[in-house]
Amino acid sequence: MKELTKKIRAFAQNRDWDQFHSPKNLAMALSVEVAEVVEHFQWLTQEESQQPDADKMNKLREEIGDVMIYLARLADRLGIDPVQAAEEKMRINEKRYPVEKAKGLATKYTEL
Amino acid sequence: MKELTKKIRAFAQNRDWDQFHSPKNLAMALSVEVAEVVEHFQWLTQEESQQPDADKMNKLREEIGDVMIYLARLADRLGIDPVQAAEEKMRINEKRYPVEKAKGLATKYTEL
Amino acid sequence: MKELTKKIRAFAQNRDWDQFHSPKNLAMALSVEVAEVVEHFQWLTQEESQQPDADKMNKLREEIGDVMIYLARLADRLGIDPVQAAEEKMRINEKRYPVEKAKGLATKYTEL
Amino acid sequence: MKELTKKIRAFAQNRDWDQFHSPKNLAMALSVEVAEVVEHFQWLTQEESQQPDADKMNKLREEIGDVMIYLARLADRLGIDPVQAAEEKMRINEKRYPVEKAKGLATKYTEL
Repeated sequence: MKELTKKIRAFAQNRDWDQFHSPKNLAMALSVEVAEVVEHFQWLTQEESQQPDADKMNKLREEIGDVMIYLARLADRLGIDPVQAAEEKMRINEKRYPVEKAKGLATKYTEL
Repeated sequence: MKELTKKIRAFAQNRDWDQFHSPKNLAMALSVEVAEVVEHFQWLTQEESQQPDADKMNKLREEIGDVMIYLARLADRLGIDPVQAAEEKMRINEKRYPVEKAKGLATKYTEL
Repeated sequence: MKELTKKIRAFAQNRDWDQFHSPKNLAMALSVEVAEVVEHFQWLTQEESQQPDADKMNKLREEIGDVMIYLARLADRLGIDPVQAAEEKMRINEKRYPVEKAKGLATKYTEL
Repeated sequence: MKELTKKIRAFAQNRDWDQFHSPKNLAMALSVEVAEVVEHFQWLTQEESQQPDADKMNKLREEIGDVMIYLARLADRLGIDPVQAAEEKMRINEKRYPVEKAKGLATKYTEL
């Protein structure tokens, strides 16, 4: 992940794109990339969404790559390590959703 | 990252949440978490978005953690490694946006 | 709708909020409000999403009101009439998705 | 607006698309359409976003038409009148953001 972040940083610097990559703009771009993932699933049933065909999987791999790139870039511009931030949040989630209370319950408790 | 993915997988299994975690539902949840990041920046100027205060940074760290968690979980359910997918996409981007053509140009060329 | 747009315009002017209401910022705010609608549906089955209970309906009514407000405001700032724009788009859709080809087909043809 | 809603309803029924148009799916589609609006603004400065050129304005008119269509359709499937919901919400906003307190203040008070 750290290597990826460095690669993206160099990529942007070489193209003189730091000027466009404010956290505000990157948050917008991240939301646009996520919508491209959502688009693949919008008319599918739950079951269909579990088994995308090979063509859809290739596209999804590319879209998920895009989301990962913008997330890494946004986090880098804010000085945040996204994997570390996720691990910290998982520790909070462990306390917030204790197994005995959250088991099998959607809505309120199903947020990770 | 792989450890994070395993931790999230165990977290969901312990709570019997796999039933809710279809790629379709996870894509929706991912978009909701990204919107919580966007919300912090919506009324800020570009400059303000570069320097969030300590309180906002804490919240952003948590929101970015959430986005990372849902992205890792969605990718896991699809059998995709998000960092590898990002690296593959960066190789495509290197070709698509050659330095000499893309330098300092926004809009068309500024997508990572 | 035109009355609604005028009401929102006066509301913003009275609070000296035009300075924050650039199309860029309003597009971000619109996406955040839509995510609040999506949030209500993310863990529901298709069937459950058809019949929200009274409490959820009240919240959805408020969220949909918010989306309508920001859409009207964004369109107003761009000098676009959203209902007229929708009617023009429906005429394009009539041609793009002829009944005989689009009937009962999802994915490609199911976009409105 | 009511005419638009009826037109969209007939359009979907003629194509046998009611089966795909659950509130859950329509909320996803709405978020995807909004992202297409956001995409036009993501790399623009605030100033640039105020004055899109003619080509961009044509595209924005079409995207805003799409957002209006999906919002009208989602609201129709839930039995909500979006303009009425917006007017109710504006009455709440009038109380929540009194002029004397909200004047010129962003972040906390700038939400419509």
